[in-house]
Amino acid sequence: MDDRELLQVVMGIVGKENCADDCAVFSCGDQVMVITTDMLHRTTDFVPGMTDWQAGWMSAAVTLSDIASMGAAPKYLLIAVGLDDWKSLESVMRGARDCCTQFGAAIIGGDIDRHNELTVVTTGLGLVDQAHLVRRTGARPGDLVCITGTPGQAQAWLDGYHQFEKALFEPQPRVREGQLLGRAGVSAMMDDSDGIALSLYDLMSVNGCGFSLESRKLPLPAGIPHGQARDLALYGGGDYELIYTIDPGKFPVEGVPSRIIGTVVPEPAVTVDGSPLAKRGYQHRWE
Amino acid sequence: MDDRELLQVVMGIVGKENCADDCAVFSCGDQVMVITTDMLHRTTDFVPGMTDWQAGWMSAAVTLSDIASMGAAPKYLLIAVGLDDWKSLESVMRGARDCCTQFGAAIIGGDIDRHNELTVVTTGLGLVDQAHLVRRTGARPGDLVCITGTPGQAQAWLDGYHQFEKALFEPQPRVREGQLLGRAGVSAMMDDSDGIALSLYDLMSVNGCGFSLESRKLPLPAGIPHGQARDLALYGGGDYELIYTIDPGKFPVEGVPSRIIGTVVPEPAVTVDGSPLAKRGYQHRWE
Repeated sequence: MDDRELLQVVMGIVGKENCADDCAVFSCGDQVMVITTDMLHRTTDFVPGMTDWQAGWMSAAVTLSDIASMGAAPKYLLIAVGLDDWKSLESVMRGARDCCTQFGAAIIGGDIDRHNELTVVTTGLGLVDQAHLVRRTGARPGDLVCITGTPGQAQAWLDGYHQFEKALFEPQPRVREGQLLGRAGVSAMMDDSDGIALSLYDLMSVNGCGFSLESRKLPLPAGIPHGQARDLALYGGGDYELIYTIDPGKFPVEGVPSRIIGTVVPEPAVTVDGSPLAKRGYQHRWE
Repeated sequence: MDDRELLQVVMGIVGKENCADDCAVFSCGDQVMVITTDMLHRTTDFVPGMTDWQAGWMSAAVTLSDIASMGAAPKYLLIAVGLDDWKSLESVMRGARDCCTQFGAAIIGGDIDRHNELTVVTTGLGLVDQAHLVRRTGARPGDLVCITGTPGQAQAWLDGYHQFEKALFEPQPRVREGQLLGRAGVSAMMDDSDGIALSLYDLMSVNGCGFSLESRKLPLPAGIPHGQARDLALYGGGDYELIYTIDPGKFPVEGVPSRIIGTVVPEPAVTVDGSPLAKRGYQHRWE
């Protein structure tokens, strides 16, 4: 059982429409508020060597990334911290606060709990004009498939390439880029936190169309043998780049360094160089 | 080290004003949105015998109670579930969904994580007119101190009085009552989830004034020796009644069964029958 299978169970209870995007959406005055929640904890997410400050930073960053992927500006963060050691709290909070400050959000609430391992749940809210809101749906055949930055670096650290520590330990959500892409009218967007492959399968499941990638166009983490670097870029988790589809006439979007990695196609399949792309990447699993 | 001491650390980082109420508050069109987050987990909160459905119900209820204590109407809930056993998810979600449905809220988002014990973090949002928003601050000497329902029942179950199972396992947030009290203009309010004593010390810390209780006025859980019942009512945790202060001219509020248990006094002290009330109740502790 993996988390995408479990999500089917949740859809049956709360409705498919409440599971479709990186954030939920509701009206707030003449704008739209987006909201998202993420649970991280020591065993799975805060790898050995990561400081408490970095655990706090990462917790805020993953949530701000979801807000960015809707084209919204982060506004507020709530943070619930489960602590095995109370001495972690101050650094976790400083890390989350510093990340929020850097990307324009403020911590406005939270909860403290005693727990058997450090567990952090961040809930983030962002604002966007309805016209600039971007969802996972909206991709059209003929659109370009693009990505910001260089995917695969976080997974590269996990595979022993420790020059990429910063990518995994202190992810930089694409907050500025997300808003520029929203204003430019990209057709669909999400972050690639579970890897490019799973992200495209997620996009396919809500759009009905497919995606054709060209591997030679993929930006690759440097200093790694080509085949391995390609796999890291396609299947690695822990990145917070934005993957988006856009009408070719609108590309490039000024101020958003990106690479075209493929095109949207009518057939519901995800391929790379014409062959089916494996549906694998970062997933939680239960026996 | 307890959670109220740790809250001082948090205040130094995110500001005292962001730790003052049961919910954070921000403008949303011509109304005010309140938002709160709560972390619960198996070891501390979901006692043996509690079903997964009840764990889900309780998780939603504690958050809706915080919304009620601000005088707001619950609107949305996000739920992050950390699962040791994936088979728990469906019942947890159904419990949370049923509680939301009963009190007028909808689940609009969430997260699923693999965890070493069932951990549920709910984030709730509610709406209220600015004029009817109630905070912890605002109590004035001469106001009455009042409480809804019968406090102490949840703790009574923990102390072996298993006739009170429903109070602990399926708490009923005072959502309707909170809104009626807000519209009636009560001066300060919070829920009593950590017990009456700690709630009054919390109110004293932000109001500057004190509280004088009369023990003979306390509603007590039935069928328990008087002294023990009195202690349960004063210090027991796990209840979700509303404790509020109100100008005597505005009491009683129609549709809100309540008891007057004391008065607000100018001196910053919490007393019962003229003697200092012990500052104890439900707290998380770390060594």
